[in-house]
Amino acid sequence: MEINIAKGIGFCYGVKRALQLAKQSANNGGASCLGAIIHNEKVIEELEKEGIHTIRSIEELKTEKVIVRTHGLPPDVLKDIEKRGKIIIDGTCPFVKRAQNLAKSLKEEGYEVIIIGDPSHPEIIGIQGYINNKGKIVLKEEEAISLPYRKKRGVISQTTQDLELFKRLVSLIAEKTYELKVFNTICSYTVNRQREAEELARKVDLMLIIGSRKSSNTTKLFEISKRILPSSYQVESSKDLNPEMFFGVKKVGIITGSSTPNSQVDEVVKKILEIDRIIKKEKDND
Amino acid sequence: MEINIAKGIGFCYGVKRALQLAKQSANNGGASCLGAIIHNEKVIEELEKEGIHTIRSIEELKTEKVIVRTHGLPPDVLKDIEKRGKIIIDGTCPFVKRAQNLAKSLKEEGYEVIIIGDPSHPEIIGIQGYINNKGKIVLKEEEAISLPYRKKRGVISQTTQDLELFKRLVSLIAEKTYELKVFNTICSYTVNRQREAEELARKVDLMLIIGSRKSSNTTKLFEISKRILPSSYQVESSKDLNPEMFFGVKKVGIITGSSTPNSQVDEVVKKILEIDRIIKKEKDND
Repeated sequence: MEINIAKGIGFCYGVKRALQLAKQSANNGGASCLGAIIHNEKVIEELEKEGIHTIRSIEELKTEKVIVRTHGLPPDVLKDIEKRGKIIIDGTCPFVKRAQNLAKSLKEEGYEVIIIGDPSHPEIIGIQGYINNKGKIVLKEEEAISLPYRKKRGVISQTTQDLELFKRLVSLIAEKTYELKVFNTICSYTVNRQREAEELARKVDLMLIIGSRKSSNTTKLFEISKRILPSSYQVESSKDLNPEMFFGVKKVGIITGSSTPNSQVDEVVKKILEIDRIIKKEKDND
Repeated sequence: MEINIAKGIGFCYGVKRALQLAKQSANNGGASCLGAIIHNEKVIEELEKEGIHTIRSIEELKTEKVIVRTHGLPPDVLKDIEKRGKIIIDGTCPFVKRAQNLAKSLKEEGYEVIIIGDPSHPEIIGIQGYINNKGKIVLKEEEAISLPYRKKRGVISQTTQDLELFKRLVSLIAEKTYELKVFNTICSYTVNRQREAEELARKVDLMLIIGSRKSSNTTKLFEISKRILPSSYQVESSKDLNPEMFFGVKKVGIITGSSTPNSQVDEVVKKILEIDRIIKKEKDND
């Protein structure tokens, strides 16, 4: 079996930066992160061992230092943390920060702000906080089609959005708007991996997209790959693999989300090699 | 035969306004229009009788008064006319004027200006004049796809553009641009007629789109109708009709471009009724 590993694997810039900040801050007395710092369960478990606790609400806060997750936090939450006299360590991804600032300035310039993204995703909840939750969130084509006509609209996107969906939605919003200002805030890491996932899916017989199902960018890579190659699987660990998946497969493609550590790739590759040996043996025995 | 005439027929606001201005100005000593005031040969012939001459170049100019065509003129041409001491009567369609101004301000604000339109159309030549011919004209999807990545782009559209093509091109440009400002300058008359052409084409057996082949908006109505109903015909006069076209046709739909006078609709309807009588007679004789 030939294993093709994409260039776009492992942590992106924003994830690396946040984890580094978190680890530095954990030294004296530990630190807390409000919500998962990134969407990867294994990483969270390891951080816990290093004294970085993931808390669900501000009421659980016991440490002096509070890390802001890569997806950012709404400003009123940050103010609340400050009021409690805590030290804030800002792990917000710079691309997310930029989207927050752009949403804010669009609103100040009088544009109705449209956010292309998932309303339940922490990044979107954070961005909404910067515009008093007045942004209109659009994720489905029907939602864009049903928009009323407006004179001025500004669009930003979740940084991990599927580029093709973003393009379709912008096109539909352009029809309903006289003056439209669009910021393509999809981050370059996301776009590059989406392109690579597409290319790889065309060349192989089976695609493995490694990363948590809670990870937006991983799930989007999976959806993109699946559109091209039905034999595409989102895997969280080597346990998600079984020999049946690989029967008749000559070429495997591997890509990961931005919050997937390289160790998870190594583990999956190891398992594929094992499966390959089993399949070969069975063939020889036939 | 049932004849369904669209609501959107006859002159649009901009054409009515320009023709009114032209006729008023023709009273003393006549007037000249540099290029066809609107794209309709019959109207031009009639204007000629009223003393409004269509000239091809400024060198042919003999009258004191010069009418600016609905599609507008580049500012250097206007300056040239002024220098010659002539009186300018501005028949530029207000929607076109707005597109000219928007192109200018986008350029001043540092955007690379993209004009969605036909490079040889007088409206586009006029708009380009307002931005020193520095606008990038995009009409085909391949042209949008091959654009390099840019930080700031501003988009305006020919006022008579096909809305669906505009949407597709905006979507492709959004992929290649970080900050994109789009003005949907397609005029409301154009959009409404395009919608009506679509609806009508779905309901009838044969569509007639009346207007000159030189008329951009008429040709686009024809293309839109043809996509839905292959039996769609662009007709310039009743001479373009023949009985064969109507065999087996129960419902005819009629729509016109913005530069088509109502008299042309009357003439076409008259011819259809004649043809209907001929077909019925032949049937009775069978």
